[in-house]
Amino acid sequence: MKLHSNRYGKAKIRVLKKLRKNDTDTVKELEVKVILEGAFDPAYTAGNNREIIATDSMKNTVNVFAYEKLDLATEPFVVDLTAHFLDKYPQVNSVEIETEERVWERITVNGSPSPTNFSAAGKMIPTTHVTRSRNHVEINSGIRGLVILKSAGSGFADFHRDEFTTLPETDDRLLATSLTSQWRYGAKPTDYGKTNARIVDAMLSAFCFNESPSVQSTLYEMGKVALAACSEIERISLTMPNLHCLLIDLSAFQRQNQNILFLPTDAPQGWIEGTVARDEIADGNSK
Amino acid sequence: MKLHSNRYGKAKIRVLKKLRKNDTDTVKELEVKVILEGAFDPAYTAGNNREIIATDSMKNTVNVFAYEKLDLATEPFVVDLTAHFLDKYPQVNSVEIETEERVWERITVNGSPSPTNFSAAGKMIPTTHVTRSRNHVEINSGIRGLVILKSAGSGFADFHRDEFTTLPETDDRLLATSLTSQWRYGAKPTDYGKTNARIVDAMLSAFCFNESPSVQSTLYEMGKVALAACSEIERISLTMPNLHCLLIDLSAFQRQNQNILFLPTDAPQGWIEGTVARDEIADGNSK
Amino acid sequence: MKLHSNRYGKAKIRVLKKLRKNDTDTVKELEVKVILEGAFDPAYTAGNNREIIATDSMKNTVNVFAYEKLDLATEPFVVDLTAHFLDKYPQVNSVEIETEERVWERITVNGSPSPTNFSAAGKMIPTTHVTRSRNHVEINSGIRGLVILKSAGSGFADFHRDEFTTLPETDDRLLATSLTSQWRYGAKPTDYGKTNARIVDAMLSAFCFNESPSVQSTLYEMGKVALAACSEIERISLTMPNLHCLLIDLSAFQRQNQNILFLPTDAPQGWIEGTVARDEIADGNSK
Amino acid sequence: MKLHSNRYGKAKIRVLKKLRKNDTDTVKELEVKVILEGAFDPAYTAGNNREIIATDSMKNTVNVFAYEKLDLATEPFVVDLTAHFLDKYPQVNSVEIETEERVWERITVNGSPSPTNFSAAGKMIPTTHVTRSRNHVEINSGIRGLVILKSAGSGFADFHRDEFTTLPETDDRLLATSLTSQWRYGAKPTDYGKTNARIVDAMLSAFCFNESPSVQSTLYEMGKVALAACSEIERISLTMPNLHCLLIDLSAFQRQNQNILFLPTDAPQGWIEGTVARDEIADGNSK
Repeated sequence: MKLHSNRYGKAKIRVLKKLRKNDTDTVKELEVKVILEGAFDPAYTAGNNREIIATDSMKNTVNVFAYEKLDLATEPFVVDLTAHFLDKYPQVNSVEIETEERVWERITVNGSPSPTNFSAAGKMIPTTHVTRSRNHVEINSGIRGLVILKSAGSGFADFHRDEFTTLPETDDRLLATSLTSQWRYGAKPTDYGKTNARIVDAMLSAFCFNESPSVQSTLYEMGKVALAACSEIERISLTMPNLHCLLIDLSAFQRQNQNILFLPTDAPQGWIEGTVARDEIADGNSK
Repeated sequence: MKLHSNRYGKAKIRVLKKLRKNDTDTVKELEVKVILEGAFDPAYTAGNNREIIATDSMKNTVNVFAYEKLDLATEPFVVDLTAHFLDKYPQVNSVEIETEERVWERITVNGSPSPTNFSAAGKMIPTTHVTRSRNHVEINSGIRGLVILKSAGSGFADFHRDEFTTLPETDDRLLATSLTSQWRYGAKPTDYGKTNARIVDAMLSAFCFNESPSVQSTLYEMGKVALAACSEIERISLTMPNLHCLLIDLSAFQRQNQNILFLPTDAPQGWIEGTVARDEIADGNSK
Repeated sequence: MKLHSNRYGKAKIRVLKKLRKNDTDTVKELEVKVILEGAFDPAYTAGNNREIIATDSMKNTVNVFAYEKLDLATEPFVVDLTAHFLDKYPQVNSVEIETEERVWERITVNGSPSPTNFSAAGKMIPTTHVTRSRNHVEINSGIRGLVILKSAGSGFADFHRDEFTTLPETDDRLLATSLTSQWRYGAKPTDYGKTNARIVDAMLSAFCFNESPSVQSTLYEMGKVALAACSEIERISLTMPNLHCLLIDLSAFQRQNQNILFLPTDAPQGWIEGTVARDEIADGNSK
Repeated sequence: MKLHSNRYGKAKIRVLKKLRKNDTDTVKELEVKVILEGAFDPAYTAGNNREIIATDSMKNTVNVFAYEKLDLATEPFVVDLTAHFLDKYPQVNSVEIETEERVWERITVNGSPSPTNFSAAGKMIPTTHVTRSRNHVEINSGIRGLVILKSAGSGFADFHRDEFTTLPETDDRLLATSLTSQWRYGAKPTDYGKTNARIVDAMLSAFCFNESPSVQSTLYEMGKVALAACSEIERISLTMPNLHCLLIDLSAFQRQNQNILFLPTDAPQGWIEGTVARDEIADGNSK
């Protein structure tokens, strides 16, 4: 038997870069897969790792290159990366790099595009939830999966510290969440569609303009403006999982990453919920 | 032991309705869940189904109501449905209905919104795929998951018929697909981002203006205009799975569903692929 | 420009076949993808469908062949299918067929394998849910996603009929569900792991031995035996979505499909819930 | 307006613990969600985080408790955790903890259970892939998604080091992968099902008995024994993404985690591929 062919590399390398020009950010998020072919047979057939570039080093390389070179267009970054692996490593014969981009669109509030607030293109799902018994009907509308991100104006500090606390305080972090919200109608609006849109716009506006000291605070501000924007709704619930974007430590590569390059993560995630209601609503009337 | 509580119903009832006003369509797609509570204990405890409304009948009811009443706003439709189940069935004590909407946005071509072409809000993923060896580099850009739908201008007829054929011919069907495409650069464009956008716009334009006799034909037209729109690309591959939207048969309910209400399905799906290239490109130079 | 290459076919063709030998069934479930290459250029370039075999006909062909030939081994079935497409259609140059199998394993009850009850190999997830306030603790354990199927001993008849009812009565259908269940501990068991396993075994045993007149009835029987099997639990909730397996109509192909070949579907799905409790438990103490 | 209710916590906290008794390991993997209710209103309404326990600290707490107390049964661990949050933090009124377990089963090789090799219960999917043209047929069978893990006998050292390398060498790590494999039949076996099973068994046996210096080496060993086990197959391809389980650093909590507690991750992942063939097979005859 013989080793007929082989290749290896690193998949799902995720980076999110904040491109700042004057005071306007652009957010660029990629998932990268790097695959190498070359003189790697001894690792397979003889347990000899001498020529093996650790896939962890490939990830480090993508991080350093993303920090240095990634800009609006993906292609020049990827082309440079492929050249690097060939130039750097004589044992490599060919390189294959694939990327997928999660597109972040600038949020527009009151007709003006925000310099530092973004939504992931597209996946918001409108929802309704109606329950009716013989003598009562309750109408809830809502949304699921509105993915939004603040590239500035978010911090988290002055929280409880004890022996389980390792999180540093910060006055400048990325805040990303996938908003799910549901509001209960107390009166019938003239137009459900327009009313629902107005509520979402109000929440987005609060998200953009709120200087966020915590997800909790931003959530409450969003709920308040939604109630203010629409007299027909009695209460609104929001769930805002914190989609943590971790600052990537590049100090081993002599780069000081000052809130430029982040690792978007799916797990674990902070989980923040809250319901905001008009004062006059009895607490007992909850869902 | 006793039956403490129970409820039942039907989840994932999917409907897609074409709302036509003058010659302009709007597409409304919902997934509906209906849950009933009531005097159903005997079905659980005594095998007595006398009071059981089959969940299949709930689906039929949603279909008939969607055909008759579903309009732009979801809420009135859902509220009516809850009332119906209580009015119609004395054994029902309460009804809970939830919906999720897949939003379809009108496609804009050359600045003008198409009356009958739509894209599912948002999930397109830009991709790149670069391979480089010591003496060659190949740069591909593309997209994945651009979900698009023609509500008019699509048929499928005159195909081969034999004893395995049951599909009727049609000159008016819904055509929906999730476009994945990849194009190979032969020359470096001035701006990758703008060039990629121009290619996608060209494909969408062909999708909208093509009177489609088959997915195959529409795919080829889309590939041709993409090559015409951008001299820097040598060839383009398209994959267009046919996301079948089946006409729902309402004849048992004395309604003749004339291309109004459809069942969107995930499986099975037609799978159409093709690659269009400039004449001068040697066939051997393929990926 | 020219059409460089093309192929098309049908993906996600799903079939579930009941192989009966004496009184013992085996369940075989496949998802099939058929791709053809051949003289199909005119459909792409000239809107000429004359040589096009509708992908719907490919699905019909897979159904007929599955009905006639599909047995324990997948490979002979697939090899025959590829030969058929070449033999039948001169315009076809090559055929590619891929399958994925969902493996169903026989359920063993009290050490003896059931002839007609199966579980989908493996995805059950054990769960816990504990809530504790300053003066109360509630401990729930459970499972999620135990996919089980009865190939005999299940019917559904004598249900309410009205103008929305089209479902025929049946005394022999497939019953498949993905069981999610949660039970509340009233007393601490000697060993949580063994107790949880005993509860699952009891539910499976009731599922297997119950002659099912409805999902509702089977659900209640399963809850009762779980409570009987374990004195430490006070109540148990079960959710059993009905994963409908639809009988495939082969009458257009001169085959009478007598509960042999089914189409497994994901949507819509019946949704059946119930909670069974010991008599002495106060209703108010519910989760 | 007022804050009607609120709660927060951390979801998707993942831990994998190696429970070693004598020389036999057991692998326990949980995903944990912790939710707290209490005196947190000021964080929502006044931007005052003084009472907020960072969700990151909750994760740390779960890690420390998992390291100290997690054993075969999940429930005592979860019950202890809920008590801890109430005991430790006066501002907490109630705690809710949910877990989901990914069950790892011991692999049995030649009838004897391995002390340190495991498979994730159940998701392996058998596959086939047959292509046929007018004068050639190629039959491939395979599997997808066989998730396996070595809790001992795996290291990675002596690999290439340069300025992009930060990965430490190790002679004791967890090795987990989701095996996808496809083998090409050169001759027809007597029984496809039994032959396929023998090939999978051979691969599992090599996985278990191989002292792994790299995924590459283990992959090659697995391919070799598969070819040796079955003369009817000509070549076999394996893809083994490295599902990294990262050692959790507990030094901040005065614990030295010596290969006991790991963080299972989905991204990024090492991506290792290889094809092993009989010597006599011409290289050109590849898929």
